[in-house]
Amino acid sequence: MRTVTYGAACSLDGFIAGSNGEIDWLHMSPDASSVMAKYWKSVDTILMGRKTYDVAQRMGGGPPMPAITGTYVFSRTLDRVRGAELIRDDAGEFVRSLKKKPGKGICLLGGGELARSLFAEDVIDEVGLNIHPTLLGGGYPLFPDIGKRIRLELIESRTIDGGCVLASYRVVR
Amino acid sequence: MRTVTYGAACSLDGFIAGSNGEIDWLHMSPDASSVMAKYWKSVDTILMGRKTYDVAQRMGGGPPMPAITGTYVFSRTLDRVRGAELIRDDAGEFVRSLKKKPGKGICLLGGGELARSLFAEDVIDEVGLNIHPTLLGGGYPLFPDIGKRIRLELIESRTIDGGCVLASYRVVR
Repeated sequence: MRTVTYGAACSLDGFIAGSNGEIDWLHMSPDASSVMAKYWKSVDTILMGRKTYDVAQRMGGGPPMPAITGTYVFSRTLDRVRGAELIRDDAGEFVRSLKKKPGKGICLLGGGELARSLFAEDVIDEVGLNIHPTLLGGGYPLFPDIGKRIRLELIESRTIDGGCVLASYRVVR
Repeated sequence: MRTVTYGAACSLDGFIAGSNGEIDWLHMSPDASSVMAKYWKSVDTILMGRKTYDVAQRMGGGPPMPAITGTYVFSRTLDRVRGAELIRDDAGEFVRSLKKKPGKGICLLGGGELARSLFAEDVIDEVGLNIHPTLLGGGYPLFPDIGKRIRLELIESRTIDGGCVLASYRVVR
């Protein structure tokens, strides 16, 4: 079965962007790039919520990623999306069936609203953070109150350049 | 100058207790005990807000800690406190003057409200977390939106028993 991973670079107080979307605190390094390059090789599918899709559109959609064969945007309000497939209903059921299909890993991208609903549906398998040495003091949370306790098992934790701490976890069922 | 440290065991989503005060997810281990024993030897003063004081009172006040020579409770609403000195006004100024006095380290205990005001007053020097492999999904946040960006420098990060990640930081001024 394919693995759904949720993760992001975040501040020590758990935000993925400041209140005005600031990401100037993100520390780029060969260390971080190599981790991300390895990760992107392990996935071929991207899931995102409406807000993350909006941000991606504003940023010009990002570079084409030929290794990604499926991109799905979950939204009840959008009528159509560009460069992706729109999923309007039953996110949990959709992801469950996606996981059974052949393919590489599935990346749940972006902020926490879709993550909350997919945690509730119990379809997320791994969580990976790149914890930056910054308190943002407010902003977009990686884990908006998900309203449910989830037990994790640490896969790996290590320090990389810039005082960033990588930590990856497996969801315990 | 004495060092003010703020820290706690927390969930990966940044809570120090569940919505009903649950701390059953805390992982006790010789590793964690040894870290805490070493820490408690480095401090002689405890600062806490009113809510943490309430919790401490409900828990029976905790064991006597002979090495602690000063305990201060910050509250505008309480009239008196037991086994501690009540500080009603100007927390920042009080802590600034405390830091100039001779003594060991100063421990800022408990939840985030007092921490928020002491971060605003720029009197916190170090932050230490024991990040547990759990998403609580809600509860008492370690960092309630502090409304201010604070740059940190990683002092140390390491994995201890139970998949807990210890991470300690210096506040960069």
